[in-house]
Amino acid sequence: MMKKKDAYTVAVVGATSAAGRELIELLEERRFPVADLVLLEPAESEGERIEFQGKGARVRKLEKSSFAGIDFAWFCTDASLSKVFCPIAAAAGAVVIDGSDVFRMDPAVPLVIPEVNADALTGHKGIIANPDSSVIALSMVLKPLQETVTIKRVVVTALQSVSSSGKEAMDELAGQTVSLMNFRDVETNVYRHQIAFNCIPQVDAFREDGDTRGEATLAEETKKILGDQAIRVTATAVWVPVFRGHALSVNIETDKPVPANEARESLARSAGVIVYDDPARDLYPLQTEIAGKDEVFVGRVREDRTVEHGLNLWIVCDNIRKGAALNAVQIGEHLIR
Amino acid sequence: MMKKKDAYTVAVVGATSAAGRELIELLEERRFPVADLVLLEPAESEGERIEFQGKGARVRKLEKSSFAGIDFAWFCTDASLSKVFCPIAAAAGAVVIDGSDVFRMDPAVPLVIPEVNADALTGHKGIIANPDSSVIALSMVLKPLQETVTIKRVVVTALQSVSSSGKEAMDELAGQTVSLMNFRDVETNVYRHQIAFNCIPQVDAFREDGDTRGEATLAEETKKILGDQAIRVTATAVWVPVFRGHALSVNIETDKPVPANEARESLARSAGVIVYDDPARDLYPLQTEIAGKDEVFVGRVREDRTVEHGLNLWIVCDNIRKGAALNAVQIGEHLIR
Repeated sequence: MMKKKDAYTVAVVGATSAAGRELIELLEERRFPVADLVLLEPAESEGERIEFQGKGARVRKLEKSSFAGIDFAWFCTDASLSKVFCPIAAAAGAVVIDGSDVFRMDPAVPLVIPEVNADALTGHKGIIANPDSSVIALSMVLKPLQETVTIKRVVVTALQSVSSSGKEAMDELAGQTVSLMNFRDVETNVYRHQIAFNCIPQVDAFREDGDTRGEATLAEETKKILGDQAIRVTATAVWVPVFRGHALSVNIETDKPVPANEARESLARSAGVIVYDDPARDLYPLQTEIAGKDEVFVGRVREDRTVEHGLNLWIVCDNIRKGAALNAVQIGEHLIR
Repeated sequence: MMKKKDAYTVAVVGATSAAGRELIELLEERRFPVADLVLLEPAESEGERIEFQGKGARVRKLEKSSFAGIDFAWFCTDASLSKVFCPIAAAAGAVVIDGSDVFRMDPAVPLVIPEVNADALTGHKGIIANPDSSVIALSMVLKPLQETVTIKRVVVTALQSVSSSGKEAMDELAGQTVSLMNFRDVETNVYRHQIAFNCIPQVDAFREDGDTRGEATLAEETKKILGDQAIRVTATAVWVPVFRGHALSVNIETDKPVPANEARESLARSAGVIVYDDPARDLYPLQTEIAGKDEVFVGRVREDRTVEHGLNLWIVCDNIRKGAALNAVQIGEHLIR
């Protein structure tokens, strides 16, 4: 369905955002075959230059006509822009890989983690959705376990770093931290409450049922990606004062026993997952240590004897790389294989 | 069993520690009837003076003979000191209220939260144990729910602030934070890993079964306090880069339905618990906002439909006040009622 070429004309929409910049770096680092790179932003960033393959590429203004001749369009934009421009790009013939949440739950749109459900890409209709960062971390670990057991229920508390709220949120954490260390008052803009030295149990807006959208996302997207609507997922999603890396405290219930050793072995065999679990040396994955790494890390693998068959897990993932830009690039790589 | 007096001779062992200072402040603030205050420490802090009721009380050297004539001895010390000196103080006739974990699981020692299980104080043998801070937060919220339902299972992730590791840990978080904001390397002493801008999933040492002692504590002490060994508790305990206040993400399974509204009503009626739960205004308890407050706060009360009868809760408590010193003082208050 994707016509094979030696190199492709690629657009990055939202090129100057943190996610956009990371994606452009990854295209270069992973040698994605780019013939021409078109960087797009709404008016305000027009004219800015971003380094790519040793040259400065100029950011152009995003317009309806921007997508003529584009093979791949990666969207690193807010929902409002994705909603309008992804269909336009797809109609112009581009394969769209969208990082926003607009299309993720659309039954006609594949929601893909290449290591988990690459087969969902078959028959896409032009738009492919990149999952939520915590969902990617969780699904990468649940998938290998599904090979031997059925996962019945998941109770997850996601400790999310502020970089998933963008550069402004990282500046807010840094700024509030400096203010507090100097006994000054803090300002809050990105988050509803102070994030420095605090944990905020609200990721995105509240829904009618009392869950936040961040929590509903964890349940809905995970089930769609794992292709099993019977898995019961209940989530609590929390912003923590960490710049980069999400950590998930996960309890799962399975239909058959999963000894901790066997779970570690299945996980260690799985592409893109690293088991880092050595209590004797006080070692487990940490957010500050996995920043910039490509894999999803899992440790603290423990049998939970409070249910017939259960496991506790501690999952850590760079929310900006595998949790966002890297997964989006890997989708493109899979399509041109 | 406690002879009633107009005022009591009180010893505080570990008087210069963060917990000791907080306890001395609370004795004054809550007008505990103190006739004489004896401040004790091992040699190194001898001679220091601490303000109490407008006068400076001198810290004396802790010795085996220190407890003659003492009515109440509050221990704010490490396990090693408590282990040796609590029995000595009790043998000398003092009622000992110990903050360490040495005696908590001793079947002969009451482990008490006055609002939850004050009746366990009856027939104490001289030593009473003050529970772990996260256990106090959790039990204060589970107890009112037990009035209408049986709690079958609890899955808890405890996000613990560094003040529970003492003043050195608070200095370590502050020092590492300042270093990182100035692009300098960090030093780690109290914790095994960097705590600034990081979450560490290890509270205390690892046990053979893969749980940390912090996690085992959450299960064992909670069951003892609630007086129900059938409750199944599985825990993950994490240090978060927060100075003061623990937050617990809690999922519970009950034998009968507990509509979220009814849960909020039971909790709101319970002494020492405040329901703070208004999603429409993005309000829920936050660690930075409850520092210095006496109550246990609960919000994000949601029905969990992934089990037949379930609830999700977000519990926040000042680990230094109700989570430690305040509860210890309240035990004394209960005994002299």
